[in-house]
Amino acid sequence: MKNFTSIKDAGDLKELLQKALKLKANPFQFNELGKNQTLGLVFFNPSLRTRLSTQRAAQNLGLNSIVYNAGQGWKLEFEDAVCMDGDKAEHIKEAAAVMSQYFDLIGIRAFSSLTDRKRDYEDFVLNKFIKYATVPVVSLESAIRHPLQSLADLMTIEEKKKVEKPKVALTWAPHPKALPQAVANSFAEWMLRTQVDLTIVQPEGFQLSEEFTKGAHIETNQKKAFRDADFIYAKNWSCFEDYGKVSEKHSDWTITPAKMALTKDAYFMHCLPVRRNVVVADAVLDSPKSLVIEQANNRTFAAQAVLAEILKNSK
Amino acid sequence: MKNFTSIKDAGDLKELLQKALKLKANPFQFNELGKNQTLGLVFFNPSLRTRLSTQRAAQNLGLNSIVYNAGQGWKLEFEDAVCMDGDKAEHIKEAAAVMSQYFDLIGIRAFSSLTDRKRDYEDFVLNKFIKYATVPVVSLESAIRHPLQSLADLMTIEEKKKVEKPKVALTWAPHPKALPQAVANSFAEWMLRTQVDLTIVQPEGFQLSEEFTKGAHIETNQKKAFRDADFIYAKNWSCFEDYGKVSEKHSDWTITPAKMALTKDAYFMHCLPVRRNVVVADAVLDSPKSLVIEQANNRTFAAQAVLAEILKNSK
Amino acid sequence: MKNFTSIKDAGDLKELLQKALKLKANPFQFNELGKNQTLGLVFFNPSLRTRLSTQRAAQNLGLNSIVYNAGQGWKLEFEDAVCMDGDKAEHIKEAAAVMSQYFDLIGIRAFSSLTDRKRDYEDFVLNKFIKYATVPVVSLESAIRHPLQSLADLMTIEEKKKVEKPKVALTWAPHPKALPQAVANSFAEWMLRTQVDLTIVQPEGFQLSEEFTKGAHIETNQKKAFRDADFIYAKNWSCFEDYGKVSEKHSDWTITPAKMALTKDAYFMHCLPVRRNVVVADAVLDSPKSLVIEQANNRTFAAQAVLAEILKNSK
Repeated sequence: MKNFTSIKDAGDLKELLQKALKLKANPFQFNELGKNQTLGLVFFNPSLRTRLSTQRAAQNLGLNSIVYNAGQGWKLEFEDAVCMDGDKAEHIKEAAAVMSQYFDLIGIRAFSSLTDRKRDYEDFVLNKFIKYATVPVVSLESAIRHPLQSLADLMTIEEKKKVEKPKVALTWAPHPKALPQAVANSFAEWMLRTQVDLTIVQPEGFQLSEEFTKGAHIETNQKKAFRDADFIYAKNWSCFEDYGKVSEKHSDWTITPAKMALTKDAYFMHCLPVRRNVVVADAVLDSPKSLVIEQANNRTFAAQAVLAEILKNSK
Repeated sequence: MKNFTSIKDAGDLKELLQKALKLKANPFQFNELGKNQTLGLVFFNPSLRTRLSTQRAAQNLGLNSIVYNAGQGWKLEFEDAVCMDGDKAEHIKEAAAVMSQYFDLIGIRAFSSLTDRKRDYEDFVLNKFIKYATVPVVSLESAIRHPLQSLADLMTIEEKKKVEKPKVALTWAPHPKALPQAVANSFAEWMLRTQVDLTIVQPEGFQLSEEFTKGAHIETNQKKAFRDADFIYAKNWSCFEDYGKVSEKHSDWTITPAKMALTKDAYFMHCLPVRRNVVVADAVLDSPKSLVIEQANNRTFAAQAVLAEILKNSK
Repeated sequence: MKNFTSIKDAGDLKELLQKALKLKANPFQFNELGKNQTLGLVFFNPSLRTRLSTQRAAQNLGLNSIVYNAGQGWKLEFEDAVCMDGDKAEHIKEAAAVMSQYFDLIGIRAFSSLTDRKRDYEDFVLNKFIKYATVPVVSLESAIRHPLQSLADLMTIEEKKKVEKPKVALTWAPHPKALPQAVANSFAEWMLRTQVDLTIVQPEGFQLSEEFTKGAHIETNQKKAFRDADFIYAKNWSCFEDYGKVSEKHSDWTITPAKMALTKDAYFMHCLPVRRNVVVADAVLDSPKSLVIEQANNRTFAAQAVLAEILKNSK
């Protein structure tokens, strides 16, 4: 593993999953692996879980971490061959190359614009950074994927599943703001590579890109999708077709106890942060079937497994 | 010691005081105690001394620390059973539970609103956080208390006192902005549990809550309170009665050399930051009797003693 | 070495240079030197390279580092004997003295105002901080100097020079914003103490202070200055005479391949961040003769050499 930006970088998925679960059982197993090395964490967007879990993961590996919030200083230029006489004080070409000298590996968070679909779906910022970086790069959520979240989700399902091939429903849920498709894209991409029966359900017009969902059952009837599900994974995303558009209808897509009652006593999952009583009712989130806190816990060990792989490969 | 939010959590006060003084004499005595553990420092309000002294204290114990400024990302919801369709992106219930997984113990700073007395005096934010946290929580100043400051103040008095039961005067002082009552409340609460003769003096109408001051001599004549004092502790606080109101009179309450001359060659104390020539005259602050820098120094060892106790108890 | 704020603190320059180069070859040679000690990094202005390289340097020495962004909390008062009833909540006298208790050494960044030349050229903020600090202070760029940058530049020239006494041209370059003179001042000051033949070239009226340039060839003809040069060091600075003024003409001072062709196949240097196609053309910056990334790399080892000296002296 050099970079880690999508499931394509995960190698043998079962192996990576087992490594993450072993690290969860014994977090300090490799607490000398990162000795004398430093992880840079570059944020173009705010973060709670991702930053804290990744810093904790680094610490468990004896790996130093330093955070750089890109918004705090000057703006970066990403376009080539421009005359930089505006508000951008440094080009990504220098910034990525320079940081590659201070850090042994770099995590980067760069959300989608939700205005320029072509640019977002090329993963423009992440790929520009990788192009000019000379050390391994880990995505901490890009414009279109959130692979560390997906690995944590996979761990959570592995820990809780009662059948060999559980029925998993990824359901759209309401939200007042325009959110990226990254978590949903990534979750679909990972689930389709694992032993689950995946249904994706969303209102008409809110289908995700086929690039990520090909092979899943696509539904627009939420109740039908919930029937007999073992896991409900809720997430809002803004429109892919009419890019970035928010739904003003569909407030009836909130996940409620009544809907959960249609399932096979399913677990409830969400990547957090979650808006209570908009995305999901209190009674679902506070029920013993909610896995959201455990998902967040697994973020540490997902990050730790990936960082450990990169550190081992670079020795 | 599980949580540390007020003197009630301090256990045997003399013992805690002696531990703090011993750590000051030998800061690296337990520099393996925090191994593989991480302290989260969550700030809802800015901090200089508290953050830096607590991070230093953690380091002296071999304990990692990670800072999270709550204002940098999204806003947190603290109320129950609300439909989160406004500007709050995450509920404290999830935030506190999630952070409890990345951190082995958590420090939290949450100032008073100075507008809602009932909510402030329930220590609403701190107690909500504790309710949902699953690891020990240390107050880094709450709406109504600043216990690590009080422990540092106690150390400072212990180091400097010349008589068994010194006369300590806590005096209100002028300030252009509305400040919390937390430092004064806490100082009173701690002093009343120790071997000092405490007088609290403030302008008419600026009395602190009796919950904190019961047992102290309450005065409104500053000069009378200074007479024969061994320690003068100055601090501004806004009105408790007319909650959060600032005094526009009383600029003559500034601590001056003439007032200090009334004392028994008293030491001068203040928790900092202090506004020179508003709260206290330069000549007092710059005199050899000023203990403000030593008070700030003791913050490190107060924090270290408390963190050490919590770490020992959690083993 | 106690403080490090200018070349005057560098001691034997050749020795310091050799130490820095040795640390580059073996970064973890002294990775126990900083044990149990903490470097405070106090920023009054934003930073990318300086913060990250200094934190990395500290880590390589086993020295903890804690960042304090002075702008995040309250404003500091720097004037004496004022009545602090305005927007400044703490005096530098307390702030510097208090931080000196939490940190074993302190790095400080304080840019020029570019409005008050007298104050800037007294290095007012840096010197006030030093006056009240009780631990060693390292300048991370002050109003008029950037000594760690200069040491890194010196390393870079030492590594690349082909003749004993190379011809170095420091050239002014265009920039849309008013920039300090610190990097140029410092570079001149250091070059004039080393074995180079220094020419400084700038448009009429943009001469630097003689305090820093005395002994260099001063030119206003850029092409003439480039002729036969071994190193071109480009940098914008705003006017010293008409203090802080930006040039609205002189856009033809951009460094281009045509101008580089006048040199003796010179290396191109810049401290970064650099505005592409304003200060320097893409073709120059992207050529194999560009040393800007290596200069940034050397920042780590320049900082490490200085921190190591201070740590050794304080033992």
